[in-house]
Amino acid sequence: MNPKVVLKSEDIPKQWYNLAVDLPSPLQPPLGPDGNPVTPEMLAAIFPMSLIEQEMSPHRWIDIPEEILDILLKWRPSPLHRALSLEKALGTPARIYYKNESVSPPGSHKPNTAVAQAYYNKAAGTKKITTETGAGQWGSALAFACAQIGLECKVFMVRISFDQKPFRKLMMQSWGADCIASPSTETKAGRDILAQNPDTPGSLGIAISEAVEAAVSDESGETKYSLGSVLNHVMLHQTIIGLEAKKQLKLFGEKLPDVVIGCAGGGSNFAGISFPFTLDKINGAQIDIIPVEPFSCPTLTKGPFVYDLGDFSGMTPLLPMYSLGHTFVPPPIHAGGLRYHGMAPLVSQAVHEGLMEPRAIHQLECFEAAVQFARTEGIIVAPETSHAVAAAIQEANKAKEEGKEKVILFNMSGHGLMDLRGYQSYFAGELGDYEFPKEEIEKNLAAIKDFPKPSTATSGKW
Amino acid sequence: MNPKVVLKSEDIPKQWYNLAVDLPSPLQPPLGPDGNPVTPEMLAAIFPMSLIEQEMSPHRWIDIPEEILDILLKWRPSPLHRALSLEKALGTPARIYYKNESVSPPGSHKPNTAVAQAYYNKAAGTKKITTETGAGQWGSALAFACAQIGLECKVFMVRISFDQKPFRKLMMQSWGADCIASPSTETKAGRDILAQNPDTPGSLGIAISEAVEAAVSDESGETKYSLGSVLNHVMLHQTIIGLEAKKQLKLFGEKLPDVVIGCAGGGSNFAGISFPFTLDKINGAQIDIIPVEPFSCPTLTKGPFVYDLGDFSGMTPLLPMYSLGHTFVPPPIHAGGLRYHGMAPLVSQAVHEGLMEPRAIHQLECFEAAVQFARTEGIIVAPETSHAVAAAIQEANKAKEEGKEKVILFNMSGHGLMDLRGYQSYFAGELGDYEFPKEEIEKNLAAIKDFPKPSTATSGKW
Repeated sequence: MNPKVVLKSEDIPKQWYNLAVDLPSPLQPPLGPDGNPVTPEMLAAIFPMSLIEQEMSPHRWIDIPEEILDILLKWRPSPLHRALSLEKALGTPARIYYKNESVSPPGSHKPNTAVAQAYYNKAAGTKKITTETGAGQWGSALAFACAQIGLECKVFMVRISFDQKPFRKLMMQSWGADCIASPSTETKAGRDILAQNPDTPGSLGIAISEAVEAAVSDESGETKYSLGSVLNHVMLHQTIIGLEAKKQLKLFGEKLPDVVIGCAGGGSNFAGISFPFTLDKINGAQIDIIPVEPFSCPTLTKGPFVYDLGDFSGMTPLLPMYSLGHTFVPPPIHAGGLRYHGMAPLVSQAVHEGLMEPRAIHQLECFEAAVQFARTEGIIVAPETSHAVAAAIQEANKAKEEGKEKVILFNMSGHGLMDLRGYQSYFAGELGDYEFPKEEIEKNLAAIKDFPKPSTATSGKW
Repeated sequence: MNPKVVLKSEDIPKQWYNLAVDLPSPLQPPLGPDGNPVTPEMLAAIFPMSLIEQEMSPHRWIDIPEEILDILLKWRPSPLHRALSLEKALGTPARIYYKNESVSPPGSHKPNTAVAQAYYNKAAGTKKITTETGAGQWGSALAFACAQIGLECKVFMVRISFDQKPFRKLMMQSWGADCIASPSTETKAGRDILAQNPDTPGSLGIAISEAVEAAVSDESGETKYSLGSVLNHVMLHQTIIGLEAKKQLKLFGEKLPDVVIGCAGGGSNFAGISFPFTLDKINGAQIDIIPVEPFSCPTLTKGPFVYDLGDFSGMTPLLPMYSLGHTFVPPPIHAGGLRYHGMAPLVSQAVHEGLMEPRAIHQLECFEAAVQFARTEGIIVAPETSHAVAAAIQEANKAKEEGKEKVILFNMSGHGLMDLRGYQSYFAGELGDYEFPKEEIEKNLAAIKDFPKPSTATSGKW
């Protein structure tokens, strides 16, 4: 039986889908330090106006420029696989499909938005883009995209990852980007932190602060900042994943899936696979849409829906989202991309409105699922992606118990070839299941108790 | 313009192509220690009979079993890309195409034969396969294939690579294989060498000796040995690359290429891309077919055509091939897969008969080409593959000088994400262009001067 469907180049989607238009209630706006909604002009210091327009767009479908498609076509449409070997191993009546985003040159879904952001920046006269990276997937993707488009790229990489993952820096260097450890001496934010704590391992929040400062402090205005997740325009660019998957499921003879799964850190790969199907759900289809997060950073499953900062030191606006508090430092699990304290506002609101059913899974179950996936389907997934695999296996086992022929779709967001140290720790029996640090969360949330509240704020569930 | 053509699953080639049938002169047989041709029965101790039959097959086309296709279809047909960005950067009138074998789960062309070999072994009752690996590509591919087919897998990995590339071992472990450093204490060959030299870094020749011994010393007969290159059946399995490329070039509107290029260590990826086009050349087409090797291990460009051993310690038959002598230890360049002293007999004879024009390129030019390729086409290639990229750039520049619209096809045999240390050394300015060690070669060739000679033996060109 055919284990894979590819689309022809000419069948690549020509428009992105904007879920914001179809959400039952309108998205609440980002707020400035004064509590008032952020204006496009305020964002113009760090983003080109075309991306700010997408961030606030009232249009359901947004055309993908030809120049972006030309680059995406180097690896897209990505394959949709039927997990025949995994199904057989599980003995499930479910049909499991996975979208393979690992075929991009940087190995994940991240370049879908990196290319788009680099393109719009170039068109607006930007010469250089700054960004931060934690585990390294995003920095690699932006370095790749900037090489494709012809832009300088500067990546602030969280120091502990910079030291532990020298190969990520080499990937970025191969694509011509400048990758330095954060905190660095190149920004005031970095210098201040180093003065206080010269041995700090750094954090994503700190790296964001440095990257934003590096962009706004270039007085020529030719340096802009780029974010790899969380924001609406990033979710938008990723919807090409689900739009392709929808066409490919039809070629497999399926109608709509019963279950759609993606791992969720900032929310972008999950949004990519799920938003086009969320539209079907809004229109009445029965679909379980499941963002999967680590038990040790349970933003959606335990956190409250609040206004919180996107970064550690307040360079970003307040965003309406589920959050564990912007000062939350999660345990050092291997899925570095899932350790973000917040969640994309679009994903947050869809969860808030009951369109999605978040799930938390422990690290050991995820690695066990990843090894089973490697030995059946053959692909070694990223530690982040293992959360989606584990949830798909849970659903397939449930279908077996219920004797139901469910159709399960998940996003295989990236390969794990640059993150084999996680597998090493797993094989060595060094990994544990981190308990949710309740007291620390309460302390972090106490720090944001005076922030404005969304009109539909909730409290957390711990 | 469309930068890539994929084929539908149903268009995957259903037969392999056997060049041996079409060579102008018959292939000279492998010889045993007594100088007589090796019989199928002698090979049966380490290979299943079905593979031995393929090794000696008189058939031009050999059916690919359905079960093998089902696994290959997980990533095949692999894409054929038009290198539009590279062409633009070079300002060449040439149209450059590359076959992307990096999309396989282990990241190279190697699983094309690993899956086939695992399949035929399983069908013959084999329970376990042993092999050796140098840089790690082959061991990873066989580990992957054995997991797909359901066989145990034991990999002897050259100690210096084992220590320098811990992630390769983790890949194999993720697929359930057992990977140990060679020389090991598990074989007599390994123990003997360790007794003489406890600190030896190991070599591919030693690892082959250990893997063969581990197979033949299992008295149950259920353990067999597998080789990832050199042998005729390995070349056969790789021809699916060129057969796909031929169909894809047609979809791009091309007839035959003017130039076909592949890097050549043992010869398998080069054979894969080139043999189907060699048939066209034998039938009268004008095609330059170029195996590319490192200047520091110039088997085809400097070595003689002789009978030589495939391994260090004489576990293999004598093979008719270009060789630098089986005791040759090449300089430690980063393209570990191109450091083999010999060359596949089928490639050797095709070169010998003037069907192919081998070329040697220095390491620095190869890395320079690889970086240009990464920054234009976006893919970071393996150090081995960089030799094919460098030759393609040479040909594209030649076409520019001549003002000719040539069609250049090369095999992008694997990605370099597991070999970024090579790029690190290159960026750090630590790499040199190794001179060909003439005296050492003469010494190594003196050691085989009493071996039987092929009827068409030549002397080397140094």
